[in-house]
Amino acid sequence: MSNGAQALMKTLVDAGIEVCFSNPGTSEMHFVAALDSEPRMRAVLALFEGVATGAADGYARMAGKPAATLLHLGCGLGNGLANLHNARKGKVPIVNIVGDHATYHTRLDAQLQSDIETVARNVSPGFVRTSSSTAQLCQDATDAITAARGLPGQVATLILPADVSWGEGAEPCPPPAQPAPQAADAAVVQAIAEVLRSGKKAALLLGGHALREPALLAAARIAAHSGVQLLAEVFPTRMERGAGLPYVERIAYLAEMAGVQLAGIEHLVLVDAKAPVSFFAYPGKKSELVPDTCTVHTLSTPAQDAAASLQQLATALGATQTAPALQAAQRPGCPRGKLTAPKVCKAVGHLLPDNAILIDEAITSGLMLSTMTAGAPRHDLITLTGGAIGQGLPNAVGAAIACPGRPVIALIGDGTAMYTFQALWTMAREKLHVVSVVFNNASYSVLNVELERVGADEVGPKAQSQLDLSEPTLNFALLAQGMGVHAVRTDTAEGFAKALEYALAEPGPHLIEALVPESLSGAKRKVLPWLLRSMPHLPQPVARALKRKIAP
Amino acid sequence: MSNGAQALMKTLVDAGIEVCFSNPGTSEMHFVAALDSEPRMRAVLALFEGVATGAADGYARMAGKPAATLLHLGCGLGNGLANLHNARKGKVPIVNIVGDHATYHTRLDAQLQSDIETVARNVSPGFVRTSSSTAQLCQDATDAITAARGLPGQVATLILPADVSWGEGAEPCPPPAQPAPQAADAAVVQAIAEVLRSGKKAALLLGGHALREPALLAAARIAAHSGVQLLAEVFPTRMERGAGLPYVERIAYLAEMAGVQLAGIEHLVLVDAKAPVSFFAYPGKKSELVPDTCTVHTLSTPAQDAAASLQQLATALGATQTAPALQAAQRPGCPRGKLTAPKVCKAVGHLLPDNAILIDEAITSGLMLSTMTAGAPRHDLITLTGGAIGQGLPNAVGAAIACPGRPVIALIGDGTAMYTFQALWTMAREKLHVVSVVFNNASYSVLNVELERVGADEVGPKAQSQLDLSEPTLNFALLAQGMGVHAVRTDTAEGFAKALEYALAEPGPHLIEALVPESLSGAKRKVLPWLLRSMPHLPQPVARALKRKIAP
Repeated sequence: MSNGAQALMKTLVDAGIEVCFSNPGTSEMHFVAALDSEPRMRAVLALFEGVATGAADGYARMAGKPAATLLHLGCGLGNGLANLHNARKGKVPIVNIVGDHATYHTRLDAQLQSDIETVARNVSPGFVRTSSSTAQLCQDATDAITAARGLPGQVATLILPADVSWGEGAEPCPPPAQPAPQAADAAVVQAIAEVLRSGKKAALLLGGHALREPALLAAARIAAHSGVQLLAEVFPTRMERGAGLPYVERIAYLAEMAGVQLAGIEHLVLVDAKAPVSFFAYPGKKSELVPDTCTVHTLSTPAQDAAASLQQLATALGATQTAPALQAAQRPGCPRGKLTAPKVCKAVGHLLPDNAILIDEAITSGLMLSTMTAGAPRHDLITLTGGAIGQGLPNAVGAAIACPGRPVIALIGDGTAMYTFQALWTMAREKLHVVSVVFNNASYSVLNVELERVGADEVGPKAQSQLDLSEPTLNFALLAQGMGVHAVRTDTAEGFAKALEYALAEPGPHLIEALVPESLSGAKRKVLPWLLRSMPHLPQPVARALKRKIAP
Repeated sequence: MSNGAQALMKTLVDAGIEVCFSNPGTSEMHFVAALDSEPRMRAVLALFEGVATGAADGYARMAGKPAATLLHLGCGLGNGLANLHNARKGKVPIVNIVGDHATYHTRLDAQLQSDIETVARNVSPGFVRTSSSTAQLCQDATDAITAARGLPGQVATLILPADVSWGEGAEPCPPPAQPAPQAADAAVVQAIAEVLRSGKKAALLLGGHALREPALLAAARIAAHSGVQLLAEVFPTRMERGAGLPYVERIAYLAEMAGVQLAGIEHLVLVDAKAPVSFFAYPGKKSELVPDTCTVHTLSTPAQDAAASLQQLATALGATQTAPALQAAQRPGCPRGKLTAPKVCKAVGHLLPDNAILIDEAITSGLMLSTMTAGAPRHDLITLTGGAIGQGLPNAVGAAIACPGRPVIALIGDGTAMYTFQALWTMAREKLHVVSVVFNNASYSVLNVELERVGADEVGPKAQSQLDLSEPTLNFALLAQGMGVHAVRTDTAEGFAKALEYALAEPGPHLIEALVPESLSGAKRKVLPWLLRSMPHLPQPVARALKRKIAP
């Protein structure tokens, strides 16, 4: 005989949900008390809900299965919303548990009363349910687990009233079946094989699970056999890359560059990806990035099996024995002199350990990261799938808990770091081997670019001040130390490399604050010349095309 | 001829909305660029949206008129939701502006696309509107301003698509009229006067605007004349108090204590307040706090004029010439020895300057604050209206901007401080004279109480760990210094008093970290004995009643 919370706990762990990222309040106290009834459940406390939800996201990306969250009513859900949004956009499964007042208490409109379901619909359009009784709770949880692990994965929100949690007489439910995704229809495969045989310029756009090793190898065989180009979506949920794996060029964030990448492609084949669109709209510019003359095909949707679909396509093309082109092992040298953002990326490429998890939320400062780590030892890359900044540090918490043996390196912009900096405390508490690198350029640098791109021409001092973080300058080393994390700050490349080497060798969390110049502030910049200057390692065809665009 | 953003800016300032608390992104860049077109608009940058919304809340509480916010799409709104919730519960007017993608961009489901309106309905049930055209924008803004400043005040959310903002041909709108609240109906006043003349035990429960000077004086005249008790709602939006004003006892947070306060009252008259209910539900306990034998009357609703209603009631009772009982000037002595939470409160009472703004989000550590400052110089008290922690530091930002000449003292628990600690940076940037006092007891202390109160009996080590902030212990002085704020930490009463004196004398922001013992952790406590021990200054009747309850 269990109370609701105890039976819920058992239902969760029996279904493989073994970690709960929590920031509880009074209405969650029975859930908290039930933690000790279930030794298989690990509870990880966060000081802010955005850390809990972002950690659940990072955990699921690396563990391949959902964690639970534990949030406190509508306000706790609000605080956790941005990182649930990123998970939703990345099709990441999360069992999002939101405590609520007792069912009979809600009509009294107490201080914390609010409409939780309306908030939850933003991130859980597919599953929001308020459990109405202790007897029903475990079935509700099972339905939430099924929804979260569905095809594709999603954030399923289970709202848990306090009296449903403390009520007696609950029975745990057995674990629900995990559905297996199916490969694409044979007819679709044949039709796309036909297209690829036509000799027209074609590309496979890989996203979601198509960026994991089995799918990548099949895609690379097809590329080698049929001469199609391989592209990756701009912000992958998780991408396996590095030496020994196929190199796949990601679509650029800036529409101007993406346009160059996609120019001339006549057939674009989507594999667990969507047709690329501009991140934001810009006056007088098209939001769709696919050229008008290009036909878009879908090999497999996010609900299907990307790897199996690509293998069938390889079979249809006779490419199963073709050797895929694999990235050679190749690292940049160690940078020297005054520190800059590209030198940080270079040092990361120079030192990246085997089997690392690399989290990129460095925004403008990370532009060179992809190039500098392309030939580094094999690693996983996690990116900002939903554009809601504040994802990186919490993701690092979750990834480190999912993969205790693997080093995690999170590269974060100064602006973005401040949204969920409380993640550092959880890293210290859980003794996670995470190296957080914060680029301090004292600016919302990307907005300097965007301010020009949206055509906001007259930029006065008040507008500039909204993009400027220099007065006062943040000291991220002090902030990290204030949360119990070893931290250093440096403005030389040698200092950075030494700090990174030390941090990778010493267990536990570290933060390195990289003091780098803000290359974009001040007078308005022209975006394309700046891109060329700042990206000397651009692939030659892209660089040439950009140059033509600038000087017609 | 203006673009939408420029005309919107003029419409806002013409209506008296002169401050915008912002955390913008790309879709808000035209609004940002338009800041320089309007010298009357002050833009205050926050590093996190919860700071912006909490600052707008604190500003409106003190300025008596709304500020605008500027948030970035659904995720920015999510980050700002908790403090908008606190504003909603406090009936505080805010013009909440949320940027959105261009209208034609939303259907593409880009990375940051989400359903903003569903989130907004949680905090703006009365007004959510997505402006659909540049031509309509200023009328939409005017409607939002009207809704925000309505009777009672509310959070009005205006969603601003990027192309509506950058479109040309907008015309500013003239300022809408500010509606004046009406006094209670004469018949209601007469009926309540009748009740108060009956000689039965009665109390006026004052909330909202009834806790401001004109209403307080009228209520105190009635109290002196008719022998009714004065009570204040548990978490006032803004309460004027101190020497020379009537003393009003606040309903206690803990239902056990509130029950004692309300026992025996036969008639409870609500003045801009709601009938008290328990903050949370507890197994086997009633959520309604009003005794079954008590009749509840409403003198005036939040939409009416509380002061005028009370004055009419005083007239009906013949109490207009009665002298109100006023709080005598009286301060506690300076505390000595090892620092504890009550000693911090004592030092604040000892040193509180004239005309201060006191913000209380100290949770368990602030239990003595009310008693210790009751006879201090006149001041305003701001409290946590919606229960969503993380309100205090942002409120301090807004209050300081609304009242540049007045010192602001914010007392914050360690747990709560970590939700919106980024507010410190805005204090430094705007050079605000705010003294933030963080009680560091390394614990979610209130949850130790709550864990017992909800009847969660078997508290194991995992459950305890969810309430414990001691490993690692946070260092708030380092955190503040990392954001450019002068900070000290101390564990002696003398050190605290000296630091407070210094901080009050030196302009600019300061943080004092008060290292205090956690008096509630460890073994389960019985709540009522603990309350008695920790509140030696309880009013004698309350203390006696509590003692009877403990030892029947």
